[in-house]
Amino acid sequence: MAARAIYAPLVCTAALLLAVVVSPSAGLSLDTVREFLTREEDTIVFSLIERARYLLNRPAYDPIHLGAGPGRRLNASFAELFIRESEAVQSKAGRYQSLQEIPFFAYRVPFTLAPPYNFTRELYPAAVFVNVNDAIWSMYFNELLPLLAKNGDDGNYAVTVDSDLACLQVLSRRINYGRYVAEVKFRGDQQTYTSLIQAKDRDALMKLLTSEAQEDIVKRRVEKKATVFGQSITSDGPIETGVNNNSGTNFKVDPSVVYKLYDQWVIPLTKQVEVEYLLHRLD
Amino acid sequence: MAARAIYAPLVCTAALLLAVVVSPSAGLSLDTVREFLTREEDTIVFSLIERARYLLNRPAYDPIHLGAGPGRRLNASFAELFIRESEAVQSKAGRYQSLQEIPFFAYRVPFTLAPPYNFTRELYPAAVFVNVNDAIWSMYFNELLPLLAKNGDDGNYAVTVDSDLACLQVLSRRINYGRYVAEVKFRGDQQTYTSLIQAKDRDALMKLLTSEAQEDIVKRRVEKKATVFGQSITSDGPIETGVNNNSGTNFKVDPSVVYKLYDQWVIPLTKQVEVEYLLHRLD
Repeated sequence: MAARAIYAPLVCTAALLLAVVVSPSAGLSLDTVREFLTREEDTIVFSLIERARYLLNRPAYDPIHLGAGPGRRLNASFAELFIRESEAVQSKAGRYQSLQEIPFFAYRVPFTLAPPYNFTRELYPAAVFVNVNDAIWSMYFNELLPLLAKNGDDGNYAVTVDSDLACLQVLSRRINYGRYVAEVKFRGDQQTYTSLIQAKDRDALMKLLTSEAQEDIVKRRVEKKATVFGQSITSDGPIETGVNNNSGTNFKVDPSVVYKLYDQWVIPLTKQVEVEYLLHRLD
Repeated sequence: MAARAIYAPLVCTAALLLAVVVSPSAGLSLDTVREFLTREEDTIVFSLIERARYLLNRPAYDPIHLGAGPGRRLNASFAELFIRESEAVQSKAGRYQSLQEIPFFAYRVPFTLAPPYNFTRELYPAAVFVNVNDAIWSMYFNELLPLLAKNGDDGNYAVTVDSDLACLQVLSRRINYGRYVAEVKFRGDQQTYTSLIQAKDRDALMKLLTSEAQEDIVKRRVEKKATVFGQSITSDGPIETGVNNNSGTNFKVDPSVVYKLYDQWVIPLTKQVEVEYLLHRLD
């Protein structure tokens, strides 16, 4: 009976989570967290470079244009419909069993493609739900995408929006990883954090979580990654390594856009996640 | 009526293609073809680096393991089910209207997410069908994947196989682009090619299509891309640019594996596509 039970369809991950106790022996440390975040930078830069291959393809984001045909739902752009359906497949495949992955839309589908898997639970169950996916969605489509993609329409909407989904997924994973950052920092100084959380002192928490020197290192590093990964490479030509050329003309994605992404959105949103998570850390 | 007709569900792209005449004014040239193939190298290297982030996760590829639960189909691995369902969504979204994209599984789904789009038809309709997706599928899972991923199982199957799909899609697009390469070469020397095609002389065609010097440049370039894109970058540390270190220990994907991928599979399979396409170029 027990063996069968783990194959039963689970339609609500949250219910499962609340029943699981945070394991203090989990392999979460400031080092592993930093390593994860640093590696995510590469994935973010790759995904931006890939999106920049395609034209803006504006009709894919316009509910009026693509909602006009017979049998088509209104009030949702092609991009939204595509991402909803792609996420539904990934949900069926168990992607969102991992707490690192949070869908942009809610799904209540059984895991028909794979059995449930007992992922390590490193987060505090009552604070797991914290995420800023709505802000990421809005930032990506309204602010970042126009900086990435050249104007134009070649009809290649499925491939284009598939590359949007890749960007959204890694940005969501990276930014909402703030929950893990906050958990590690909380464990490292429970006394200080507990008093600030009990006082609901957002400003003091934000200050405690902020290290401008560290943030500056990250911003300069991602800008450098954009120059290195976005350069044109020949078999024997020189390799462009500088970050002084910020015109963006020689790179697949303007390095200053990647700097801006981290400066204005990734880092502030991550800290927002950290503060919200901490405010629920004693619930 | 005409305006409505383009919104009618199209269930068979092949039927549509046969009705379309190749446009001689299409922007296909040796330069645009080479530029496309060179840009695809970056996407291929990125996708391999991303797959190498995850463990091998062998159960995802084993039909016995994941097919054993109740309500689960047998005779198909998790990877196959996931890729089938993901491709079906992309097919609904019109991805395979573009001749550059060929699914690994056949779909007969209407384009419910987007209206049909009139992509440029640069290929000869009777030879469009040529592809080596079966060989790519087999090569990827049996030969390449064990060289990319570290042994281990962390249950992160959906994310892992999603990264397999990204590799498969770009390898398929790159290798089956041999149809475009062959079309350009045919147009550039119709007389020579026509006589070899009429004689069904595969060996002579293969010889005519082969430039070892050019292939060597490509192989060295992709190896170099693996060293540049797969290095660890710090904010102010030196950037590793050499291709001499082939141990692979400092890179996210062993550069010699990328060299081998092109040497043993990408280039030979592309030429196989070119020859098959040409053999149907006068049908």
